[in-house]
Amino acid sequence: MTDVRQRKVEDKSDRSENHPGSGDTADDLSIDPDVSQQLPQASDKTTEVIDSALKDLTPRWRNWIIRGIFTWVMIFGFAAVIYLGPLALVILIFIIQIKCFHEIINIGYAVYKSHDLPWFRTLSWYFLIASNYFFYGESLIQYFGVLASKTDFIKPFVTYHRFISFSLYVSGFVGFVLSLVKTHYLKQFTLFGWTHVTLLIVVTQSHLIMQNIFEGLIWFLVPVSMIICNDIMAYLFGFFFGKTPLIKLSPKKTWEGFIGGAFSTVIFGMVLSYCLVSFDYFICPIEYNESKDSLSMDCERVPVFQLTDYTLPKVLQTLYGLVGVKLETVKMYPFMLHSISFSIFASIIGPFGGFFASGFKRAFKIKDFGDTIPGHGGIMDRFDCQFLMATFVHVYHSSFIKAVGPAKLLSTILKLNSADQIELYQTLKDNLIRKGLVPH
Amino acid sequence: MTDVRQRKVEDKSDRSENHPGSGDTADDLSIDPDVSQQLPQASDKTTEVIDSALKDLTPRWRNWIIRGIFTWVMIFGFAAVIYLGPLALVILIFIIQIKCFHEIINIGYAVYKSHDLPWFRTLSWYFLIASNYFFYGESLIQYFGVLASKTDFIKPFVTYHRFISFSLYVSGFVGFVLSLVKTHYLKQFTLFGWTHVTLLIVVTQSHLIMQNIFEGLIWFLVPVSMIICNDIMAYLFGFFFGKTPLIKLSPKKTWEGFIGGAFSTVIFGMVLSYCLVSFDYFICPIEYNESKDSLSMDCERVPVFQLTDYTLPKVLQTLYGLVGVKLETVKMYPFMLHSISFSIFASIIGPFGGFFASGFKRAFKIKDFGDTIPGHGGIMDRFDCQFLMATFVHVYHSSFIKAVGPAKLLSTILKLNSADQIELYQTLKDNLIRKGLVPH
Repeated sequence: MTDVRQRKVEDKSDRSENHPGSGDTADDLSIDPDVSQQLPQASDKTTEVIDSALKDLTPRWRNWIIRGIFTWVMIFGFAAVIYLGPLALVILIFIIQIKCFHEIINIGYAVYKSHDLPWFRTLSWYFLIASNYFFYGESLIQYFGVLASKTDFIKPFVTYHRFISFSLYVSGFVGFVLSLVKTHYLKQFTLFGWTHVTLLIVVTQSHLIMQNIFEGLIWFLVPVSMIICNDIMAYLFGFFFGKTPLIKLSPKKTWEGFIGGAFSTVIFGMVLSYCLVSFDYFICPIEYNESKDSLSMDCERVPVFQLTDYTLPKVLQTLYGLVGVKLETVKMYPFMLHSISFSIFASIIGPFGGFFASGFKRAFKIKDFGDTIPGHGGIMDRFDCQFLMATFVHVYHSSFIKAVGPAKLLSTILKLNSADQIELYQTLKDNLIRKGLVPH
Repeated sequence: MTDVRQRKVEDKSDRSENHPGSGDTADDLSIDPDVSQQLPQASDKTTEVIDSALKDLTPRWRNWIIRGIFTWVMIFGFAAVIYLGPLALVILIFIIQIKCFHEIINIGYAVYKSHDLPWFRTLSWYFLIASNYFFYGESLIQYFGVLASKTDFIKPFVTYHRFISFSLYVSGFVGFVLSLVKTHYLKQFTLFGWTHVTLLIVVTQSHLIMQNIFEGLIWFLVPVSMIICNDIMAYLFGFFFGKTPLIKLSPKKTWEGFIGGAFSTVIFGMVLSYCLVSFDYFICPIEYNESKDSLSMDCERVPVFQLTDYTLPKVLQTLYGLVGVKLETVKMYPFMLHSISFSIFASIIGPFGGFFASGFKRAFKIKDFGDTIPGHGGIMDRFDCQFLMATFVHVYHSSFIKAVGPAKLLSTILKLNSADQIELYQTLKDNLIRKGLVPH
């Protein structure tokens, strides 16, 4: 192997000697997919205290212990942020998003050797800022538009949000075109694409995570915990019972782990949902309350969080009858049934987010996205499945749970000026009178 | 040059001899940016009749004449489609979109030699279908949701549109992960990114074009014509007065052409706007009329299409006074003033869409995106600036023109069920009474 690599390096120097200055050729994009040397990879380096305490252990054990410590550090840190409330959580998500972008974009820089394109680095961060301005702005306006419109200074930013965002983006686009250098066209267009795909994966999806949080903490906590549970349980089931390999991309994954993980996740999901559903703190969306003029997390329970009678299927009724119990209906929170859909997605489709990330890392011959979390690798290594899951929950929630109800529409109406509000009121009144829905 | 290339080919065969079967290395993505031999390029080939009529001309003249003929063919074809109405136009846009996607994706196939990835081609077309299903569905629901909800068969597709679209996309994503082959990881991820950037450029923007058409033909016709006008006039001004080169990317462009084009476009835009603005056919959105139960293109003129008094600036008033004319106000359609913004964008930022496309073509050493239109090259060669322009008009329209007015909100309210309509009515009534806006 060393020989082959040696030979490759010689090849390259050979070629650049032969074509001095031939920048605008295939050689310009002679990519180096073996970038692990240039990128920080998962390490066991931590603080000196831990290092000296563990110095007598074998590397394998050392790694296990450090990984274990930082798993708990993450879990407790996460719990603390949840305790601090949704806004702290949104800030955390934002930091994670920036870090994920950083990790992926750095791979691109290493692979396509961007060191001769300093201007491009600035540009890709600029695109990150512009797209965040757009997406976070959209959410904030959607949820707190009424509040924001009250401040004169902020109002134009709300009204012209899309126009401002578009102008920001177009400036970046023009900057990109102006930065094109003849000898690097290919590299520059490749990195342009790389940046945009990263934005598509990281920014758009982390924005959906934020929207889930605004809908109520439970829409964020349950799915995130499910992915973690599925990861751990699939690992444990695989470790103890694993025999049949599942997919070539991840040779360690087995069917036994996959199925065991799925079952555990369904049960875990229902138990967790049952625990969280009783607290208003977890189920209420953060909303701006017009009459109180403050942000609130009180709410009337929407149907999905109200105990509901479900008729048992005949088969189960008969089974219960056999043991002498007459049981026709059970009381349950509808959310617990929805949690089954989430568990199934988390355990069947969720892992594909991880497979995708594995394949990506293999394509560029790196083991991890970075070394942000000791023993774990990069942030992106921990969040690969979370993005897809969050998108699923968001789409599911907006399709099946959140009908555009009267409350939402009312808040839009109250954003209109008085004349328009009155006009709308009159037309609606006439319309309803015509249909005989309200008395004349 | 031939020597260098010869040597390069030897290099490559050398290396593959040395590493037989080493698919998963940098060599896997040894791209071939000189793809012009594999891609259809602009040609003068037309019908036999034209060919034989022109056979005695020099190639230069031949090309000019064919280019001229097909310019007029396009203009008349386009006019015919406009005459057929907005729906015919939407179909045309759809066909153009498919063709643009086809041209760009084919470059990717040629560059990264995808012939050993037949499954991937199917997949990228699948993504095209899925994203179109999503975007066009969104528009149709937005504009014709009330109509669509009336048919029982279509209703679930409207209600669960996002969920269905997401499921379609995720299936493709899972398919991609399952199709990963160890020897081609790098190539597959690159083409995955290529497909997604193409979708981002072509599908999302052509969907905005469609929305512009639905808002009224004028929002489509004026910007499209401006780009064409700017192209032609910049060429003519450059041809006759051009001296100072403008940008390295397009060596033929000059400052004289740029400025001449901009002025002509502003004037052309105002004249064209003035002509179109008097016809309801061009300014009315296609809407579903609830009371008539039919699609209609009648409308009450919104303020932007109503003659309005504008006070002349003092300076101009004084100037008119000097020649003995007392003129304080002028009557104008506000749309004509907005058309100036469009012209300025079309002539200053619009060309950057073209520069971007030029740079892209140069990166892969191709002259044209394809040979769809004789004498002109590919469809994408004609539409490179149109996409950016359409996005600008869309954002401009939704930020400055189309306030979410009472009419739009009312149509949303009327989609609710009766109970919710009544509830909303009551809450709105109470709210307005509390504010003293309507009598008790």
